[in-house]
Amino acid sequence: MSATATAQSNVTSERVFNFSAGPAVLPVSVLEQLRDEMMCYPGAGASIMELSHRGKVFVEIMEQAQSSLRSLLNVPDTHEVLFLQGGSALQFSMIPCNLLRGSNKTAEYLVTGSWGKKAIAEGRKEGDVTATFDGSTTNYDRVPKAGDYQTSSDAAYLYYCSNETIQGVQFQSEPEAPAGVPLICDASSDFLSRPLDISKYGLIYACAQKNAGPAGVTAVIMRKDLIDKGDAGLPGYLNYQNHYEADSMWNTPPTFAIYVLGKITRWLLDDIGGLEAMKALNEEKSSMVYDVIDANPNFYKGHAQVDCRSKMNVTFNLPSDELLSKFIKEAGEHKLASLAGHRSVGGIRASLYNAMPREGAQALAQFMSDFAAKNG
Amino acid sequence: MSATATAQSNVTSERVFNFSAGPAVLPVSVLEQLRDEMMCYPGAGASIMELSHRGKVFVEIMEQAQSSLRSLLNVPDTHEVLFLQGGSALQFSMIPCNLLRGSNKTAEYLVTGSWGKKAIAEGRKEGDVTATFDGSTTNYDRVPKAGDYQTSSDAAYLYYCSNETIQGVQFQSEPEAPAGVPLICDASSDFLSRPLDISKYGLIYACAQKNAGPAGVTAVIMRKDLIDKGDAGLPGYLNYQNHYEADSMWNTPPTFAIYVLGKITRWLLDDIGGLEAMKALNEEKSSMVYDVIDANPNFYKGHAQVDCRSKMNVTFNLPSDELLSKFIKEAGEHKLASLAGHRSVGGIRASLYNAMPREGAQALAQFMSDFAAKNG
Repeated sequence: MSATATAQSNVTSERVFNFSAGPAVLPVSVLEQLRDEMMCYPGAGASIMELSHRGKVFVEIMEQAQSSLRSLLNVPDTHEVLFLQGGSALQFSMIPCNLLRGSNKTAEYLVTGSWGKKAIAEGRKEGDVTATFDGSTTNYDRVPKAGDYQTSSDAAYLYYCSNETIQGVQFQSEPEAPAGVPLICDASSDFLSRPLDISKYGLIYACAQKNAGPAGVTAVIMRKDLIDKGDAGLPGYLNYQNHYEADSMWNTPPTFAIYVLGKITRWLLDDIGGLEAMKALNEEKSSMVYDVIDANPNFYKGHAQVDCRSKMNVTFNLPSDELLSKFIKEAGEHKLASLAGHRSVGGIRASLYNAMPREGAQALAQFMSDFAAKNG
Repeated sequence: MSATATAQSNVTSERVFNFSAGPAVLPVSVLEQLRDEMMCYPGAGASIMELSHRGKVFVEIMEQAQSSLRSLLNVPDTHEVLFLQGGSALQFSMIPCNLLRGSNKTAEYLVTGSWGKKAIAEGRKEGDVTATFDGSTTNYDRVPKAGDYQTSSDAAYLYYCSNETIQGVQFQSEPEAPAGVPLICDASSDFLSRPLDISKYGLIYACAQKNAGPAGVTAVIMRKDLIDKGDAGLPGYLNYQNHYEADSMWNTPPTFAIYVLGKITRWLLDDIGGLEAMKALNEEKSSMVYDVIDANPNFYKGHAQVDCRSKMNVTFNLPSDELLSKFIKEAGEHKLASLAGHRSVGGIRASLYNAMPREGAQALAQFMSDFAAKNG
């Protein structure tokens, strides 16, 4: 075994600072637990992946993940926590299939970037939708302010994406929905990065692969009175009611992904100290990088308007394509990885999710500062 | 590190023979690779779970998984391999959504157990369906023979489940569909357990958590001419065409689950020697257990008719509830775990999937023989 142990030690030391936009960096201490429990989950006689989802061991893991999530976000009893498959893409359809189809109402969308555009396109298939705000006129560099849009008090729901991963713009607080209009949020890329008042939401969801776990599980937190709105004729998997009645075991859930999500919620509670502490650390990390952008305004050009900047995805460009390529190449030599922007917008995107350590943001800021000094 | 190494060694030795019906036993050598690569996938500087699905490393893993699957099953160029989320439950809907809805045809189902019943219920929501064969009259103890049913040459498709996990009945070969009628198969619980002639199928699918990996990914192999049959108004995730055009990356795929599936296909190719060898081993293992049932006809009562017996899930009952409880308890003391039958049918279910070693089947057979001698 000591050869394996040495190999593992070497392998750990080869880890880079990984700025991937998702799937993304996970806490090292969580990965170590996954490694140590891989052959045998304590007391279970088998890997977690090999256990029946209906057995005592996994049911406890599922319940722990749900209850940790409830603790972290102070989820009120009015809301249910579901774990589903299909990612945000399936939520883009499930939400209008359950809450718009057949309602004779219009669903309103605040479109602030690529994910909002995808969501409204799926919504359109199920009923009347309208883009109450559309950031395309300023190339999706901002989110709306309170006076920028008006929501009908008869809307089916008001939908927004709290953090646009690709453009790097983020709502600093929830938009206001009129009384009686459920607020629906795609929080995939800033979920668990800060405290939220869940009572404001009709439904908030996040695919896990940014802040909450591996790809393959989506957390949905929804108000209980909205759960049974889907028509019985919907494809069964798309009806929230089925998942609710079966406690997220309408079919076999993605057990390993839920187990990892549970570990991450424990890490947030026990190692980080909750979401206020997480928020402070995320603000500190993102400020380090934005400060370098602001200190070099003729070299780095941030994409987002200053008051809409994302704490999760810092997006900026360089003066030329040559410098952009050089930046990515030299960053890689400094073990700063996965910094290229999304293929649809280019530039640089540094994702600073919860599990990115302070040292990673520091190393990136230092590199950016040095790079600007040498190439500016 | 040596403390960790020792802990791992102890933990490995605690592994039991795990007869869970799914999620189910995985090859030890695969679990060891997952453990050793957990902190850092070789050369990637990060865990596989932390890597972008669009990066070079994961794209290669995805392509390797697809190509290994193609090799194992000799998938012809006429067929595509997709990796989706949502399990069999979502396939129950996707198949009729794409291939029945709007066709003005009737879809025919051979209902041989619990999974067939669930599938036809979802099909009914999308169009006309008929149960061309319904095993309920004999309590789902058999699959139909060639003369037992008649499929219309104008059917939208002929659907069946090759192995009913809960009842333990299995098609020994494919049912015949008339020319022009696509044959559709839910092979979730016997996928990769034996060679198949994929050219016979319009679509064959399997959720991974029995023979092909962890819960959270479903392999779909479908004839290319059937891929574009879905209406553009379908929820995007439910349209096969979207997944095909994006090479299973229409949205973020379940990367870790696909990585494990890839490892399992390599294990089948390299360690087992392909599906003929796997089939022979599976026949050997299941015969060990069925032989004990047949040798003790007054004690063990097998559920399936002899010529319909599943090589994957051996289902039987004992003379009394007391003996059933005693069997499960004493089996547990012999490190034979997860033998209780599905809650809907009771009795014993011993699942002998690919990764169950010969020694596991041997130990179970010996225990059953001893138990009958002592209690019969």
